Amino acid sequence: MKLTVVGAGNVGATVAECVARMDIVQNIALIDINEGVAQGKALDLMEAAPIHGFDTVIEGGADYGITEGSDVTVITAGLPRKPGMSRDDLLKVNSDIVSSVTRQVVEKSPDTILIVVSNPLDVMTYVAYMESGFPSQRVMGMAGVLDTARYRAFLKMELGVSVRDINAMLLGGHGDSMTPLPRFTTIGSQPVTDLIDEARLDEIIERTKKGGGEIVGLMGTSAWYAPGAGAAEMVEAVVKDSNRVLPAAAWVTGQYGLEDLFIGVPVKLGKGGIKEIVELDLNEKEASDMQASGAHVREVIEAYQNLPKDEA
Amino acid sequence: MKLTVVGAGNVGATVAECVARMDIVQNIALIDINEGVAQGKALDLMEAAPIHGFDTVIEGGADYGITEGSDVTVITAGLPRKPGMSRDDLLKVNSDIVSSVTRQVVEKSPDTILIVVSNPLDVMTYVAYMESGFPSQRVMGMAGVLDTARYRAFLKMELGVSVRDINAMLLGGHGDSMTPLPRFTTIGSQPVTDLIDEARLDEIIERTKKGGGEIVGLMGTSAWYAPGAGAAEMVEAVVKDSNRVLPAAAWVTGQYGLEDLFIGVPVKLGKGGIKEIVELDLNEKEASDMQASGAHVREVIEAYQNLPKDEA
Amino acid sequence: MKLTVVGAGNVGATVAECVARMDIVQNIALIDINEGVAQGKALDLMEAAPIHGFDTVIEGGADYGITEGSDVTVITAGLPRKPGMSRDDLLKVNSDIVSSVTRQVVEKSPDTILIVVSNPLDVMTYVAYMESGFPSQRVMGMAGVLDTARYRAFLKMELGVSVRDINAMLLGGHGDSMTPLPRFTTIGSQPVTDLIDEARLDEIIERTKKGGGEIVGLMGTSAWYAPGAGAAEMVEAVVKDSNRVLPAAAWVTGQYGLEDLFIGVPVKLGKGGIKEIVELDLNEKEASDMQASGAHVREVIEAYQNLPKDEA
Amino acid sequence: MKLTVVGAGNVGATVAECVARMDIVQNIALIDINEGVAQGKALDLMEAAPIHGFDTVIEGGADYGITEGSDVTVITAGLPRKPGMSRDDLLKVNSDIVSSVTRQVVEKSPDTILIVVSNPLDVMTYVAYMESGFPSQRVMGMAGVLDTARYRAFLKMELGVSVRDINAMLLGGHGDSMTPLPRFTTIGSQPVTDLIDEARLDEIIERTKKGGGEIVGLMGTSAWYAPGAGAAEMVEAVVKDSNRVLPAAAWVTGQYGLEDLFIGVPVKLGKGGIKEIVELDLNEKEASDMQASGAHVREVIEAYQNLPKDEA
Repeated sequence: MKLTVVGAGNVGATVAECVARMDIVQNIALIDINEGVAQGKALDLMEAAPIHGFDTVIEGGADYGITEGSDVTVITAGLPRKPGMSRDDLLKVNSDIVSSVTRQVVEKSPDTILIVVSNPLDVMTYVAYMESGFPSQRVMGMAGVLDTARYRAFLKMELGVSVRDINAMLLGGHGDSMTPLPRFTTIGSQPVTDLIDEARLDEIIERTKKGGGEIVGLMGTSAWYAPGAGAAEMVEAVVKDSNRVLPAAAWVTGQYGLEDLFIGVPVKLGKGGIKEIVELDLNEKEASDMQASGAHVREVIEAYQNLPKDEA
Repeated sequence: MKLTVVGAGNVGATVAECVARMDIVQNIALIDINEGVAQGKALDLMEAAPIHGFDTVIEGGADYGITEGSDVTVITAGLPRKPGMSRDDLLKVNSDIVSSVTRQVVEKSPDTILIVVSNPLDVMTYVAYMESGFPSQRVMGMAGVLDTARYRAFLKMELGVSVRDINAMLLGGHGDSMTPLPRFTTIGSQPVTDLIDEARLDEIIERTKKGGGEIVGLMGTSAWYAPGAGAAEMVEAVVKDSNRVLPAAAWVTGQYGLEDLFIGVPVKLGKGGIKEIVELDLNEKEASDMQASGAHVREVIEAYQNLPKDEA
Repeated sequence: MKLTVVGAGNVGATVAECVARMDIVQNIALIDINEGVAQGKALDLMEAAPIHGFDTVIEGGADYGITEGSDVTVITAGLPRKPGMSRDDLLKVNSDIVSSVTRQVVEKSPDTILIVVSNPLDVMTYVAYMESGFPSQRVMGMAGVLDTARYRAFLKMELGVSVRDINAMLLGGHGDSMTPLPRFTTIGSQPVTDLIDEARLDEIIERTKKGGGEIVGLMGTSAWYAPGAGAAEMVEAVVKDSNRVLPAAAWVTGQYGLEDLFIGVPVKLGKGGIKEIVELDLNEKEASDMQASGAHVREVIEAYQNLPKDEA
Repeated sequence: MKLTVVGAGNVGATVAECVARMDIVQNIALIDINEGVAQGKALDLMEAAPIHGFDTVIEGGADYGITEGSDVTVITAGLPRKPGMSRDDLLKVNSDIVSSVTRQVVEKSPDTILIVVSNPLDVMTYVAYMESGFPSQRVMGMAGVLDTARYRAFLKMELGVSVRDINAMLLGGHGDSMTPLPRFTTIGSQPVTDLIDEARLDEIIERTKKGGGEIVGLMGTSAWYAPGAGAAEMVEAVVKDSNRVLPAAAWVTGQYGLEDLFIGVPVKLGKGGIKEIVELDLNEKEASDMQASGAHVREVIEAYQNLPKDEA
């Protein structure tokens, strides 16, 4: 098995690190226009291998030749969100980057599965889908795993229980347009709503929505440990054919009353990509939140479609 | 058990990440004068916890209050080596930093074990030792684990065998003054000298000596994956009381004909720190290399001792 | 940290194996009246250590001297259930064994936590509690983790999804008197009742109740892989102070309308044992099942109390 | 990837457990003429999966239909050694079993790799090789990993250091005819001969040779934790294509002055099986031990060849 990670920034390198430490693929190609950074991080990871005990071979470079024959590709390329910058500000520059990257990836690995991490997520996944011409089960975006992890982390801080016993699912677009589902959150099978009152839970959900911004505010740059781990978890599910049920930005064709866009929904993930979109039975409020989220994603897609087309 | 990591730069954060993922300490305090960076990385790591499944609680901040009662402390503080900058150029600024850090750490955790990663390594460990007033078994430097990992990684690239079957030990000072021991390197128990001719092995050793610089040359900044993993491996040995035999910068009192300095030697590492310094039976060439390495470390210590004392 | 496992039969040895492979305690004492078996399995496990890479030291014997100062003790002693034998047939002989074992354990390790695995589970936990004189938070039985694992395994077989995304909680007595809670079972946050119809789910729950007997029917002897792993998971939570929320047979003092007996309830498990009993908000049917389960456990306790007292 | 394990006794079930816990194959078929035992252990392992978190599907049965398309097959079938019984006593009955098993395995999985664990090991591997008609790189025996693990365990007990830092290689036939190589044993790179005097080391080697018998003497039955872990480590190397350098019973064609038999030698193990036999540079004593070991294996092969041929 072979993985390509496009973008050797913090998120991309973390994806490579996490997957390498699983020791489940023979090769990882780490691609960046900044060749030295890609080579340096690949080398540093190789030098950590004897300590961690993994045998995955990691190669870095700027030339897509090293990506040939990849089974899975994670696209993290794009400019990071700067303090004060909205996700949508990134639209123009990142859609050009994702288009270009996708073309080059697909040329070398026509059977790969694409996992997009670039922001604004739902639309960048759309861009990769359109550019690749792949069937929709082979294209998806990573956001729900991250958002859900952040939500679970905040619940752990609130309740002091093990992260392993906090079960949750958040749907919809990434960030502000997220569809929270507190009804589907349990702590060791106990509904979270029995443990945390509505006002406090709303605060926690609000913090989750702004989770990316909170880190940017503290560090002046975007997060990478949780985003990288999230993408690696999706890679693991595909490589091992685990049939994990994870939230992912998937191409909907009527599910949740939405179609022709990528949006966060629970999917069954394994060999070949998305095997199934899981349809939760939403109540009226949740369904309406999901519609609002879909409308928001639709707007950004339209903004993207209205951009002058001149990408490299 | 509690770990403090001083310095929330790339190396420090990687130490925190690696130890957190082992799920062997209840708490990690991540300290940095840049409070936002320490808090942001700690938060990002906490948000990755639900994906990795660890329950270690990581807290970031600038105030040493959060480090109170630590069992182990890793000091990574100091300015990173810039391209073209020698390790010795860092001496003045980093000895001031390490002195100040050590004082503050020791005040809050008088029983902690100190693992120094700051450069120039052997001398910064000396600084921490002097400043702490700790018994020598509780103070050590991390360099040999890293150097040996790099050497093993290069051997893996050369021979194509699993890192798990490459066994090696490199002694002496960190970097150029390293004492290579090819006689003690085996590939699945086969002496490496049966597999690689002397000229090629010399090249690999030379590459190992310059391993830090190679990464700086590629990326414009120092490595962190392998250094962070190396320090985490030492923390693991102490926390688990594993009695690992690992190379570490230890205070020698006559071993290898050296005394009153820290230099890379094999140590038995477990609860309480260094339980024993292992004395390998060196041949004439190796012993002479070790003397030269000791002389080099001595010189830097003297340079340090001759610095005007005005640290914060 | 030190673990004692009493009983070197299949279940006891599996507990030792699972905990050793976690590498989280320094010592494991494996006790059995059959000294050779205890020594042989301890030795075999030590010989597997270099392959698995753990450093826990395992010692086997018949003399409780080797258990001295244990932090956690798992009691698996007792005769295994034979084909056709009810759990209750085991009452007399196993209560004598558990009483005797508890006395000897407590003498050597007055501060240990007791995790009982011997059958009939709820009553043997009661016996250990009475005999030890320990506060109730330090005595518990392992059954719910096993029953829940079996239930999740059957759901995996039914639905073909990853075990990691099947979340469930089963309460009440071990075996036939279990209190199933399908309302609290989710598959990637989706209620299982949306995926499996009531009749089929009833079959799966019935299979879970008879899960022990199914294995006995196939093999002519009781299971050990899942029971051993279940007890090891509880040991892990205590040793790491993880605050896991797991089902355990705990001493209830009014929770779920029950008192003065051990019965399966969700508990928060960490350092010091049971930190809290979690009270789920049961519906009428579930609450009535729980009462019936409690009545069943009460009956067996009374049967035990009416036994002639002559244990060794 | 798919693994078949033939023999659901203690060793076979342990191989299945260890590989399942690695979560590196999608399916394991566990075959035994005692169908109930195979089904019961497979079911018990499946029920442990939710606790361990693996998704490998394990199926047990007596019909080789379930083994179809296996990539790797471990043959543990054969009668266990009873107290007082020599390995050679097992020759007749076990060669019949291994022949029959091999035929059935090969029919369903013509491309599988065969790892033989049945005793007497070196000859049972020969039997599987002859019966399968496979190229020699796809047939091997597991003995050296076990013998070396036992030797490392005894060294750990002697020296109190981590198993992770004890590096060793033992060659030759399994058991009494083993070829010890103390020169190639290191403790954290230090030659063991610097730490343990010759007389004591001889005792440790002698204990290693009799390691199987020691366990039989204690328990009245053969070991399984270390043997099962040893075979699983070989499966891992093949499945992951790790290029591990491990001792294995391999078909020699002149290496070490031996040919036309299976004997323990270091091999490079990965995809497709044995990629290379490693030739250590033995001294006179070691070479002569290896010849003696080869002669012993040759004798058993001849004993096997002289058996009346009437296997099922």
